Amino acid sequence: MKTDKENKGITTRAENYSEWYLDIIEAAELAENGPAKGTMIIKPYGFAIWELIQAELDHLIKQTGVQNAYFPLLIPEKLLQREKEHVEGFSPELAVVTIAGGKKLKENYVIRPTSETIMYETFAKWVRSHKDLPLLINQWNNVVRWELRPRLFLRTTEFLWQEGHTAHATEKEADERAQLMLQIYTDFAKNFLAIPCLAGAKSNAEKFAGAQTTYSVEAMMQDGKALQFATSHNLGQNFSKPFNIRFQTEDSSEKFAWQTSWGLSTRVIGGLIMTHSDDKGLVLPPNVAPIQAVIIPIWKDAITKKEILKKAGSILSELEKNNLRVKLDDRDSRPGEKYYEWEKKGVPVRIEIGPKDLEKNSAVLARRDEDSKTNVNLKNLADEVKKLLSEIQANLLKQAEERLKKNTKTVTTWKEFEQAIEENKFILAPWSGDAKVEAEIKKKTTATIRCLPADQPSKLGKCIYSDKPGKFLALFAKAY
Amino acid sequence: MKTDKENKGITTRAENYSEWYLDIIEAAELAENGPAKGTMIIKPYGFAIWELIQAELDHLIKQTGVQNAYFPLLIPEKLLQREKEHVEGFSPELAVVTIAGGKKLKENYVIRPTSETIMYETFAKWVRSHKDLPLLINQWNNVVRWELRPRLFLRTTEFLWQEGHTAHATEKEADERAQLMLQIYTDFAKNFLAIPCLAGAKSNAEKFAGAQTTYSVEAMMQDGKALQFATSHNLGQNFSKPFNIRFQTEDSSEKFAWQTSWGLSTRVIGGLIMTHSDDKGLVLPPNVAPIQAVIIPIWKDAITKKEILKKAGSILSELEKNNLRVKLDDRDSRPGEKYYEWEKKGVPVRIEIGPKDLEKNSAVLARRDEDSKTNVNLKNLADEVKKLLSEIQANLLKQAEERLKKNTKTVTTWKEFEQAIEENKFILAPWSGDAKVEAEIKKKTTATIRCLPADQPSKLGKCIYSDKPGKFLALFAKAY
Repeated sequence: MKTDKENKGITTRAENYSEWYLDIIEAAELAENGPAKGTMIIKPYGFAIWELIQAELDHLIKQTGVQNAYFPLLIPEKLLQREKEHVEGFSPELAVVTIAGGKKLKENYVIRPTSETIMYETFAKWVRSHKDLPLLINQWNNVVRWELRPRLFLRTTEFLWQEGHTAHATEKEADERAQLMLQIYTDFAKNFLAIPCLAGAKSNAEKFAGAQTTYSVEAMMQDGKALQFATSHNLGQNFSKPFNIRFQTEDSSEKFAWQTSWGLSTRVIGGLIMTHSDDKGLVLPPNVAPIQAVIIPIWKDAITKKEILKKAGSILSELEKNNLRVKLDDRDSRPGEKYYEWEKKGVPVRIEIGPKDLEKNSAVLARRDEDSKTNVNLKNLADEVKKLLSEIQANLLKQAEERLKKNTKTVTTWKEFEQAIEENKFILAPWSGDAKVEAEIKKKTTATIRCLPADQPSKLGKCIYSDKPGKFLALFAKAY
Repeated sequence: MKTDKENKGITTRAENYSEWYLDIIEAAELAENGPAKGTMIIKPYGFAIWELIQAELDHLIKQTGVQNAYFPLLIPEKLLQREKEHVEGFSPELAVVTIAGGKKLKENYVIRPTSETIMYETFAKWVRSHKDLPLLINQWNNVVRWELRPRLFLRTTEFLWQEGHTAHATEKEADERAQLMLQIYTDFAKNFLAIPCLAGAKSNAEKFAGAQTTYSVEAMMQDGKALQFATSHNLGQNFSKPFNIRFQTEDSSEKFAWQTSWGLSTRVIGGLIMTHSDDKGLVLPPNVAPIQAVIIPIWKDAITKKEILKKAGSILSELEKNNLRVKLDDRDSRPGEKYYEWEKKGVPVRIEIGPKDLEKNSAVLARRDEDSKTNVNLKNLADEVKKLLSEIQANLLKQAEERLKKNTKTVTTWKEFEQAIEENKFILAPWSGDAKVEAEIKKKTTATIRCLPADQPSKLGKCIYSDKPGKFLALFAKAY
């Protein structure tokens, strides 16, 4: 599966950040463009990362009582139209099926851009009494939103995600669920992907079409831009009313349900790449690395080759027994070539074993996250590798946290704001809550309000842009 | 999530087999019709079955060296047209996107009915040398084929499946892969789903559009009809030539690759229902049961309730520690109602625990597959439940094997054939290999050749229908 790019090398971040991003994806064989514009082929190595993300997040979601299900891809147009803001928000992005089974359809179907409408039509049938609530459903699927400026992982016409949808008896319970999922996404980003995030409510201008409140998790990329990592919406009764999701309360009155929806997509793989990778290639936190350690046997001749490969094989099975994801690269190519290849693919630990190591019953462990090597006795190898993987996981988080801290500025004057946005910082600044101010700032600087962090100060100064008092401390940044 | 059906009861198989099938799906809350014609909503309990199937089959597939990936949903029309038989076979079933992003498209996209064409366009780029072979890719996804007579699980406009696609350096290797996957499907059906199958090549009339040879696995439903459970295709060079999948051999010549594709879909859940269920509801083999045992606590008053629930809770955690999938039904409804509900849902083992059991430190285990109960000491509960689950798994397979054996007839005369087909049997009979004969038999009896079982006798009599000598022993049956 070699491509020209693999031989040409990777553009550095300083040279061209956008090129660097695409080079990493190509060099690490994560994905490539599909035949239809804006579509993406996720290659085996990239898909293995998605499978690890899915397994962990699915587990976390199910732990909160959510069950998986599957709803159809095709939505009758009239269903989508039932919630006004929602259809207006999505109309420009829809893919529409007008012919099926050789005939022009009487009613068109849209390919789901998200599944609120098709799921809530059914929720209305499932929910009758307060005993049917909360209804907690999640699905892993593909959605289509036509993209004018597609970019692998970050913005693709079709993407993979999970979308959770719930219905509750009270407004409070719905908001708690929306916030719980926000917390789960934040913790997942931090603990599993080593990505620190800022979380909070979106402004009205930035919220999901049809939501009452949208919460989002925002991560900082190495160029200082924000990446919206996941969202969680408190939908209020905006959908339950047009879709007629009513339930009988304990005292036999009838009420409309309160709802949430929340999702995380393959976009996070873009975030993963831009948080940790360097000019040599992909860097992966061990938790999400399809291969956590690669064994590179080094031999001089046929006799040492046989001995070394035998030892390498026993190391492999020892590490696999310890539930580590390990690969033995026993190809005939030169060790240096192999180092280079696995470095590009972001394998966290390289285990080198040559004739001298064999004599001493030791091996060399090289880290991907920094330039360091250690000798370890083979007796303790599994424990040493595990320890090193934990260290790498922690170190990558620490580095990202330091970068986030260093590049987040709290400002109080417009001059400071302008300078900070020039320097591609995350900016925390007081905002009046006025949508016009938000729009003007966006027009002037391209920075948008990413979220209103949950942790709001008790006192706020004047709005950063207008003369009004600050109502919220807002996170401003340029964004993907 | 109650529906009218749950209160009305299940039609018996003798009354109306088709109604029975749909009643089981409704009563066990497996699935329901989606808003667009022919689509299916897979409800949480049905989807949990699919998740168990996915986990096991994914593991078996990966063990043979296959890697998962993801290819786009939308196929440019011109790509699909590149293999003539393939496009002719699928044209009547296609859903076509003609509008996207608010504009009429210059070139239409079809929603994948299967992914040969979109994957092989890319395989041509990935395969350059013999070192890139074999290329072994699988994906779990959704496909759309417009169905005129949809039926939940068995035939739906959109369905979920895995589709594996491989490319090899030799014809022999490709055929071995096609047969290996056939074996994996057969073993999976038998060992995991307790469904015995007959496997073999399809006749030319019944093969996949574009394949050189199609192999299939056929299972017998309780009405004697055959259900094609999974297929595996040796595609020869039928796709590698139009898609230009060429590789450089070791001696530097160029050759077209040899290919296979193979798939198993949510259709198997229909097969699972119709193999094991009875007039009381769904019956599930323990391996594929989302809940393997349900604990029903029985109390008389508030004091015994507290004691019993405490014990039931400790039983639950004990069984969960043993990696069993267990539910404690602690609702306030009557035990009899609970028995009825879990019986309909096919939970293999029911654990009843009441005040008398508590005194004796015992519980009652009731089996779903037969009408029997045993008392067991709580000391050995986990082991006893595991033993019972194994027995149930084995018993369901035994029952299905006996039914298959009893209802499969080897015939040598047309009169016997007609009688056997009247009795809804599987028929093994010599066939001349002539497609006209096959077509006439189908017209007269609606029976089709399901497959030519791998295990062919060394000598065969005259063709069952014509005067020609028998060339193959063919499996004939009516089919879903």
